[in-house]
Amino acid sequence: MVAGIGRVLDELEHFRFGAEELAFLRENGVADEPTLEFLADYRFSGTIHGYLEGDLYFPASPILVVEGTFAEAVLLETMILSILNHDCAIASAASRMSNAAGKRPLIEMGSRRTHERAAVAAARAAYLAGFTSTSNLMAGHAYGVPTAGTAAHAFTLLHDSEKAAFEAQIASLGPGTTLLVDTYDVPGAVRTAVELAGTELGAVRIDSGDLAAAAQAVREQLDALGAFKTRILVTSDLDEYAIAALAAAPVDAYGVGTSLVTGSGVPTAALVYKLVARETAAGVLEPVAKRSVGKPSRGGRKHAYRLFDAAGHAETELVTTSGPAPEGGEPLLHELVRDGVVVGREPLESARARHRHEIDRLPQEALHLGRGYAAIPTEFV
Amino acid sequence: MVAGIGRVLDELEHFRFGAEELAFLRENGVADEPTLEFLADYRFSGTIHGYLEGDLYFPASPILVVEGTFAEAVLLETMILSILNHDCAIASAASRMSNAAGKRPLIEMGSRRTHERAAVAAARAAYLAGFTSTSNLMAGHAYGVPTAGTAAHAFTLLHDSEKAAFEAQIASLGPGTTLLVDTYDVPGAVRTAVELAGTELGAVRIDSGDLAAAAQAVREQLDALGAFKTRILVTSDLDEYAIAALAAAPVDAYGVGTSLVTGSGVPTAALVYKLVARETAAGVLEPVAKRSVGKPSRGGRKHAYRLFDAAGHAETELVTTSGPAPEGGEPLLHELVRDGVVVGREPLESARARHRHEIDRLPQEALHLGRGYAAIPTEFV
Repeated sequence: MVAGIGRVLDELEHFRFGAEELAFLRENGVADEPTLEFLADYRFSGTIHGYLEGDLYFPASPILVVEGTFAEAVLLETMILSILNHDCAIASAASRMSNAAGKRPLIEMGSRRTHERAAVAAARAAYLAGFTSTSNLMAGHAYGVPTAGTAAHAFTLLHDSEKAAFEAQIASLGPGTTLLVDTYDVPGAVRTAVELAGTELGAVRIDSGDLAAAAQAVREQLDALGAFKTRILVTSDLDEYAIAALAAAPVDAYGVGTSLVTGSGVPTAALVYKLVARETAAGVLEPVAKRSVGKPSRGGRKHAYRLFDAAGHAETELVTTSGPAPEGGEPLLHELVRDGVVVGREPLESARARHRHEIDRLPQEALHLGRGYAAIPTEFV
Repeated sequence: MVAGIGRVLDELEHFRFGAEELAFLRENGVADEPTLEFLADYRFSGTIHGYLEGDLYFPASPILVVEGTFAEAVLLETMILSILNHDCAIASAASRMSNAAGKRPLIEMGSRRTHERAAVAAARAAYLAGFTSTSNLMAGHAYGVPTAGTAAHAFTLLHDSEKAAFEAQIASLGPGTTLLVDTYDVPGAVRTAVELAGTELGAVRIDSGDLAAAAQAVREQLDALGAFKTRILVTSDLDEYAIAALAAAPVDAYGVGTSLVTGSGVPTAALVYKLVARETAAGVLEPVAKRSVGKPSRGGRKHAYRLFDAAGHAETELVTTSGPAPEGGEPLLHELVRDGVVVGREPLESARARHRHEIDRLPQEALHLGRGYAAIPTEFV
């Protein structure tokens, strides 16, 4: 899944070298005076086409095409790759989790397991991929991602008893709150919770043990107590496989942390930023490519189209350096920056809806939770 | 390896809720008015003891002991865990790489493969763990980490020929520069490099292929050309295992990227922040602990000591909730924050030297590059 495009555009608009940065570069002999002068006036004045956020990508998809002078374009390399390699990795894991969860809500809760700023970007990426909300309030503030949370074990331990903790929480947040029931003994906590909140209790959270068995037992207990509408939220090292394994359990929502913010085994996408064409002295754009053993690049300015079968399912990712658009192929590269001006900004909700739409257009077998194969093939013409 | 303590102290000093944050919380109904008033005046006024940065930690080491009111201390949870879980994971990978590299320099080059801000923290952590320098200039600016870099394939591809690219680089940076020799054909590039820079050529970089074989061939070629002092820098998906495998190859320095910034398979440490004691109404500190299935916590305020054998090698990590310091045990928890004031700040170089010192005091077998076991056992008394 493509994610981070909006963040790249945000950063691009503020990509400047201030007095402090220039002083550092000068004092440490990193750049000479002509370079420092160039940096002081630096503005990217070129053009960027890219895949839209929320869209899918496949091996060799040209996610971003940056056109400009070498000096202007090369300075963006690390910023662009850092954002896209991080956000695409997290979003792709989040997308798999979201597919595994089906219609059940997913709360992103991984902030504490990744760098403090990466956490905010991870919450944004997860939301784009279909998560319902995040416990990261800064992601709510910065990007408008809906926020949610539950109580911690520490809150229960702080009180003289679990009952006292539940009473305090209900007094403050009402019976619709989510009570954490596994600090000491789950059945006892569920009984106390319904006693105190009544059958209008919003939800209970289970954070340990065999989640499928625990959810089943808690559902039966809640129903027996008349709390038919009380939901069950489970957390505890969930990933897309664990979520899929809970499909038949009476779980109403998932909270996902570590495996989301670490990309569920793939903490970084393998995106690279390569020079593929240069303008000759004669003003012609000519392809260039390295021939490094095992890491050759493919020269030429790319265009990309997605082809669909008669049933409307994605069939092929077509990457080409020339020729007209194939019949029925949907163009994947859109103008994001024109002559240095950002023109491709869009609301998070649009990217989120696009992702859902593109996932729905994949062949069904593409959503299989296996590792290491591409959902559709890439063809070069 | 413990890393991030200095960053926690930096963040703690700026941990405030500004008008914008409070407005967001108010408008979104996240906090009520009494809570908002509390947040507006928030200052941590408690005390923090911790392991020093650069020191080692083992299973159940109490890296940080935060003492204060519940409300003040619980707000620090995500900030502290985010920083330590990230930085400890990266530093631990970096430490293994540094041990594998022995006396050969290591350049951190992973910025493009992680979140743009995480990249800066990763460069800092790597330096603490023994890396020589980083290609992340912001880490140089923010933390004084020495910076270094080499040319990119794009620089060669931009020019009319590899020779023209090398000429331009040497004209700007002198013959002591590092030339990238694997864009097209390594032997041809090495010949051109020495022709242009002479035998004073600083270094060549190889970024593809079988690095051991390539380094051997390049060394022989350089020597045959009289460039005996020209160093060989290798890069290309190196991790601690690949570095160890190159020990016998004529490599002078390593550049490490992806596997460093992703923690070489362990992108996050598994550190948790738990309430382990609370003051009773009678003013007594009493241990508290959760009993969640498979995730019980260990109650009580912790002290920690490291015990050494007669030869001066670390033998045991001793964690205790009571009792006097054991004879000869070195206390591991030091005062970092006293009544809200940071007192434990230290220069990066001190932490870096401490790490080297503590690694040297480990038993030799602790540096074995295996996964999944603790170098020394933890004992509880």
